[in-house]
Amino acid sequence: MDRTPDGHRPPRFPADVAAAAHVVWTTVAPQVMIDGDAGHHLRRVLRLRIGEVVTVADGTGRWRPYRVADLGEGTVTLASDGDLEAEPPPRPAITVAFSLTKRDKPELVVQKLTELGVDRIVPVATDRSVVRWDERHAAAALVRLRRVAREACEQCRRARVPEVAELTSIAELLTEPGLIVADRAGASVLDVDLSVHEAHGLVVIVGPEGGFSAAEKGLLSDITVVSLGDHVLRAETAALAVAACLTAQRARYYNSA
Amino acid sequence: MDRTPDGHRPPRFPADVAAAAHVVWTTVAPQVMIDGDAGHHLRRVLRLRIGEVVTVADGTGRWRPYRVADLGEGTVTLASDGDLEAEPPPRPAITVAFSLTKRDKPELVVQKLTELGVDRIVPVATDRSVVRWDERHAAAALVRLRRVAREACEQCRRARVPEVAELTSIAELLTEPGLIVADRAGASVLDVDLSVHEAHGLVVIVGPEGGFSAAEKGLLSDITVVSLGDHVLRAETAALAVAACLTAQRARYYNSA
Repeated sequence: MDRTPDGHRPPRFPADVAAAAHVVWTTVAPQVMIDGDAGHHLRRVLRLRIGEVVTVADGTGRWRPYRVADLGEGTVTLASDGDLEAEPPPRPAITVAFSLTKRDKPELVVQKLTELGVDRIVPVATDRSVVRWDERHAAAALVRLRRVAREACEQCRRARVPEVAELTSIAELLTEPGLIVADRAGASVLDVDLSVHEAHGLVVIVGPEGGFSAAEKGLLSDITVVSLGDHVLRAETAALAVAACLTAQRARYYNSA
Repeated sequence: MDRTPDGHRPPRFPADVAAAAHVVWTTVAPQVMIDGDAGHHLRRVLRLRIGEVVTVADGTGRWRPYRVADLGEGTVTLASDGDLEAEPPPRPAITVAFSLTKRDKPELVVQKLTELGVDRIVPVATDRSVVRWDERHAAAALVRLRRVAREACEQCRRARVPEVAELTSIAELLTEPGLIVADRAGASVLDVDLSVHEAHGLVVIVGPEGGFSAAEKGLLSDITVVSLGDHVLRAETAALAVAACLTAQRARYYNSA
């Protein structure tokens, strides 16, 4: 981890902009009208006034500062007040695949993983997942989880919304490059060498609290296992812990420039 | 971090015992009768039968395996089935001090910090804490948080219950050795050198989402700041992230033996 990649470090919002309200919207055009829930939030909850600074991001990494130009009934019109910035995707891209379990809250996992900077979040149905999503439930859950990711970006001033993937299985995940499994065995997650994953990204599979089934263990038998310590973590805690460790490692990698 | 301390690595529960029900109780005597909520849980929820394995820890790091010897009405009598083990306190002791804010859930923070292996959890009232605990509320909250810590130990099979301290202030924390502050500035939390904290422990102060007040910044101006990355984390997310990174570092420190 001595090598430092060039040009990958995300730009930081300047201090005054970092303190401003942050909206993830569909566009970062020179003039933007925010309506709906977001407009209501800016107008009625944050009580923004003419001239105040707001940042808007389009969710793909582009953002710019704006000032409030006009206030309508539940709408806020913003005029750009700075250059359009584009943050390159951080590398390696970090994907966390976590199994759905009865006690855990996928909303909490998605919120925290988004704040921590994970790029892609994959809900997984494992043999020991207590929760089974039927088709209709899965579609509704996905809409809800994607909204949670967007709102978490607004809360933590993140310009790039992570992808929340559709429910998948261990077998489907096996086709992805850069797989590792987080468990109680193996070398420390802190010893993962991010540089070897820089091109294709890193996909961490977090098992359910009851562990993988024998069939899943068979499928995963060739995958590197990394350890999160000696305690038996809930699936949600394991997902947060591995995300915190890997994103901190990646930030250190960039900041060592 | 090349040096490896001797004798500090916590003993691991053997696999069969790690899979057993885990109870934190008042004693690890050769025969133990579990009653009350815990007895009900073992009897009615887990439906333990005569001969099944249970581990009991006394919360101070001592534990042993037992077998179910007798089942009563809402009680379970256990007979020891292995040697008493004592795990030495891990070093450095890790304390996380987190500020109470309106949106965050101290129960969630205490649960996750316990699972991750934090030794001491200190709720802090900062100038920008939205939540103010009056005396009566504080006592009830502390009882609740200590119960959460105990239950999290049972869930994650931890033998030593972390201390949940009384509500304190930044000024009071300043008297403690090994203070660091987690923020967006500073070197990576992964670069904290645990070996210098081994004797006296490490106390990480996690600020409120709105940041510290000018007065608090003044108090903390001489304290080392470590970074958790570029995003604006909720206080609860910052507490979890710093705990995950530091406990993973400590586990690696032990396991490098």
